[in-house]
Amino acid sequence: MNALDSHLLKTIADLHSIPQGAYNIRKNGTGISRNSTANIEIRPKEDKPGIDIIVKPGTRGESVHIPVIITNEGLEDVVYNTFDIGEGADVVVVAGCGIHNPGESKAEHNGIHDFIIRKGARMRYIEKHYGEGEGKGEKILNPVTIIEIEEGGYAELELVQIRGVDSTRRETKARLHKDAHLLVTERMLTHGQQLAESNILVELIGQDASTQVISRSVAQDNSRQIFYPRVVGFNRCRAHVQCDSIIMHQAHVRSVPEIAANHPDAQLVHEAAIGKIAGEQLIKLMSLGLTEAEAEETILQGFLK
Amino acid sequence: MNALDSHLLKTIADLHSIPQGAYNIRKNGTGISRNSTANIEIRPKEDKPGIDIIVKPGTRGESVHIPVIITNEGLEDVVYNTFDIGEGADVVVVAGCGIHNPGESKAEHNGIHDFIIRKGARMRYIEKHYGEGEGKGEKILNPVTIIEIEEGGYAELELVQIRGVDSTRRETKARLHKDAHLLVTERMLTHGQQLAESNILVELIGQDASTQVISRSVAQDNSRQIFYPRVVGFNRCRAHVQCDSIIMHQAHVRSVPEIAANHPDAQLVHEAAIGKIAGEQLIKLMSLGLTEAEAEETILQGFLK
Repeated sequence: MNALDSHLLKTIADLHSIPQGAYNIRKNGTGISRNSTANIEIRPKEDKPGIDIIVKPGTRGESVHIPVIITNEGLEDVVYNTFDIGEGADVVVVAGCGIHNPGESKAEHNGIHDFIIRKGARMRYIEKHYGEGEGKGEKILNPVTIIEIEEGGYAELELVQIRGVDSTRRETKARLHKDAHLLVTERMLTHGQQLAESNILVELIGQDASTQVISRSVAQDNSRQIFYPRVVGFNRCRAHVQCDSIIMHQAHVRSVPEIAANHPDAQLVHEAAIGKIAGEQLIKLMSLGLTEAEAEETILQGFLK
Repeated sequence: MNALDSHLLKTIADLHSIPQGAYNIRKNGTGISRNSTANIEIRPKEDKPGIDIIVKPGTRGESVHIPVIITNEGLEDVVYNTFDIGEGADVVVVAGCGIHNPGESKAEHNGIHDFIIRKGARMRYIEKHYGEGEGKGEKILNPVTIIEIEEGGYAELELVQIRGVDSTRRETKARLHKDAHLLVTERMLTHGQQLAESNILVELIGQDASTQVISRSVAQDNSRQIFYPRVVGFNRCRAHVQCDSIIMHQAHVRSVPEIAANHPDAQLVHEAAIGKIAGEQLIKLMSLGLTEAEAEETILQGFLK
């Protein structure tokens, strides 16, 4: 791994060296380093690109890192990863993709992630997306996340687009069974001419399934964002969806949430807001000695934290 | 007018007798009584069914009643009404449609209403829908409301579906210019096998245009409701959209609001909630001596007020 690889891995997965525990590092469409542990097995798929990650029942306090980096232009990388989180396990999965596109033709990574969180298991999943590069070649990321949570299971999806991604179309679909809970936090920054679309569908199937979806975004320059978060309740269940966007410059933001109740004991709530940075916040920080640009940056960082 | 006519007019327009001021009463597809005043002219359209309502600039404190009643089955009534509210006027328009369908074939009324609220004018518009009848003939109401509000104008749309409407598809479109304000309050009760769909689109075009959309609904039995409130901001503007639904029995409710900002100074907020009647409220009223059914009815009436 060279300095550029390390820089990308640090940005998307907070990795300063080869991680502890199970990991799979993919670079320019190929696995370059892999490690399984006694409790977490990673094995390449035989029928298509990608890996199976199998976490033994009862595994606790372990992590899996599966970052992807791309440093070539003209690459269209599609990968299928399947996660089986065994009963009663409690693990952290760190994914993410960093693209450094040096040229004029596009670099694209589409990660299709399929999760099953088995009975009573817990998973925290962190996925960060980042793009950079000297040329005008587009950096494109179209992640698909499909998650099924069995009885009493819990999952947290932390989905972050740091910056530099020219085009993204995010698909997230979840099915929750009895007493399952899903927390989705999405944070996204777009700038330049970037385009971002996020579709989230959470189906609350089992009794007392519940979900919280929190989406925060900042749209700068001429960028465009569209959000379609949807929650459908089929049973006694609860959901809270919250979308907040800061709009700047000539950006456009559309938020089209849906809540649908197909059961009299479904309790679904949605809130959305689009607006600019609050003037009072700017003035307060500037009165403490920050320039307007510094104050703006501080507020945006806080909002996307 | 017979007793049935009076009953329908009282239900939809609070009319106990022929109203004061300007009015047009339509029954079973024909105007049966009309009155213009010095300031408000009502004249039948020449090219299609319907009337033009012209309110002179500066007219204040006057009202127009244009109720529609249907007491025959097998009628499909379409009417085009055009409202011109002159500069600086301040008037109340009471519309609404009541259907008593005595038979087995459907009775349908589609009122297409087109408003221009001129510079600085104010209008309060009240439209109530109601259906009843001995037979199984459907009562169908598909209103279309198109409203343009000029600089500094103000309009309030109070759109109420009382009960008994088997199928409704509501279309409401508004364009707001500089400093214009629109308040929409929609209240809807569905029961039985009824179906209700409401599409609202408010475009905030002029600087400092603002809107508030409040939708409240109760879905009972096997009824289905779908709401698509949309607000699009093209300028410095403000919007607040609030949809609350009470779901009961085997009903289904979908709420799909959209806020879209195409300007950095657009401030748009949306809130939606679907849930059942709060248990504490029921218990409190029952502890005061009401039966459960009475307590439920009291809460629903309050919610839809």
